[in-house]
Amino acid sequence: MPKIVDHAKQKEKIAEAVWRIIRRDGLEGASVRNIAEEAGLPMSSMRHYFSSQAQLFAFSMQMVNIRVEERIRCSLPANSAPTFEGLKYVLLQVLPVDEERRLEMEVWFSFVTKSLSDPQLKELSDQTYEGLLRLMKLVIHTLVNMQLARPGLNAELEAKRLYALVDGLAIHGIMRTDQVTPGEMDAILTHHLRSLCQ
Amino acid sequence: MPKIVDHAKQKEKIAEAVWRIIRRDGLEGASVRNIAEEAGLPMSSMRHYFSSQAQLFAFSMQMVNIRVEERIRCSLPANSAPTFEGLKYVLLQVLPVDEERRLEMEVWFSFVTKSLSDPQLKELSDQTYEGLLRLMKLVIHTLVNMQLARPGLNAELEAKRLYALVDGLAIHGIMRTDQVTPGEMDAILTHHLRSLCQ
Repeated sequence: MPKIVDHAKQKEKIAEAVWRIIRRDGLEGASVRNIAEEAGLPMSSMRHYFSSQAQLFAFSMQMVNIRVEERIRCSLPANSAPTFEGLKYVLLQVLPVDEERRLEMEVWFSFVTKSLSDPQLKELSDQTYEGLLRLMKLVIHTLVNMQLARPGLNAELEAKRLYALVDGLAIHGIMRTDQVTPGEMDAILTHHLRSLCQ
Repeated sequence: MPKIVDHAKQKEKIAEAVWRIIRRDGLEGASVRNIAEEAGLPMSSMRHYFSSQAQLFAFSMQMVNIRVEERIRCSLPANSAPTFEGLKYVLLQVLPVDEERRLEMEVWFSFVTKSLSDPQLKELSDQTYEGLLRLMKLVIHTLVNMQLARPGLNAELEAKRLYALVDGLAIHGIMRTDQVTPGEMDAILTHHLRSLCQ
């Protein structure tokens, strides 16, 4: 069914155009007209893919999610035993340590900011919050199961603390690429994870 | 000079109108027309206060800064010796633990997101980053000087870790008011500061 594949591919192409515009001009530059131009599509064809700008934004936001989730899934050890380095590697998937992740984070924060006044995006942003909090809990529980964690550690609180640290680092990493470098994000994360261990 | 006072007051009134619009509709709702309407001023008078929308945005962002700085200054112990609780109190000034601070944070993150593609706001956002990093360093150095801090603590790294944690908590606090409550932000911050101590 080549038609369906083309349709999905075109939608992805449009979402990627949205990402580029957001990075260059901010979300307020992402009018349907500008998006069509950036994607190299006639304005008239846009309605064929998305019935509204809101739907287009939701899809573009979801596409960030899907890419990040995929990378996280691939970074989780499938059959081998988890290691300290392996856990850190999983968390680095949601930090702007390379160009791909920096673009994702910039787009993501634009949508999160917009989600504060947009119920449709809010639902998506809430789902992602829950998903990432689960990931943080998984990391903490794995440290506990590996008997690396300090005894008596409060797993719920540590998961939320870790999540806040990671998101704070992500924001500082995109705000101040010169000050909060990939190496520094790695060092702070390593130090934090070690501080949770015996 | 009542004229000057009025001028400054009107500018503040306009900036507050910008804040309310950002919270309600996001930054993309903050057209000069909407701002004039929200502030209850004729559209024609806007140019009297700000020569451009960019200037208006920069002023509105700066006003968040000024308010937060003022609150931080008031929260710093002037003549008494610093305490652990006092240091935590200073940091709570930049967390959305009440309605006033929640509004400030929401507006602030909207501007920070915009600053990624807006050089004029970027300069302001960079200045604030530096200012808050200095505050974090002050907190860490005070813990050291009070001989509360763990020996051998890396002050530079801890200041950046603390800053990331605080900003991450702030974002989660405005994104998920139900999940990351003021009480929880306080508990996580307390736990973090304690973990830096002997």
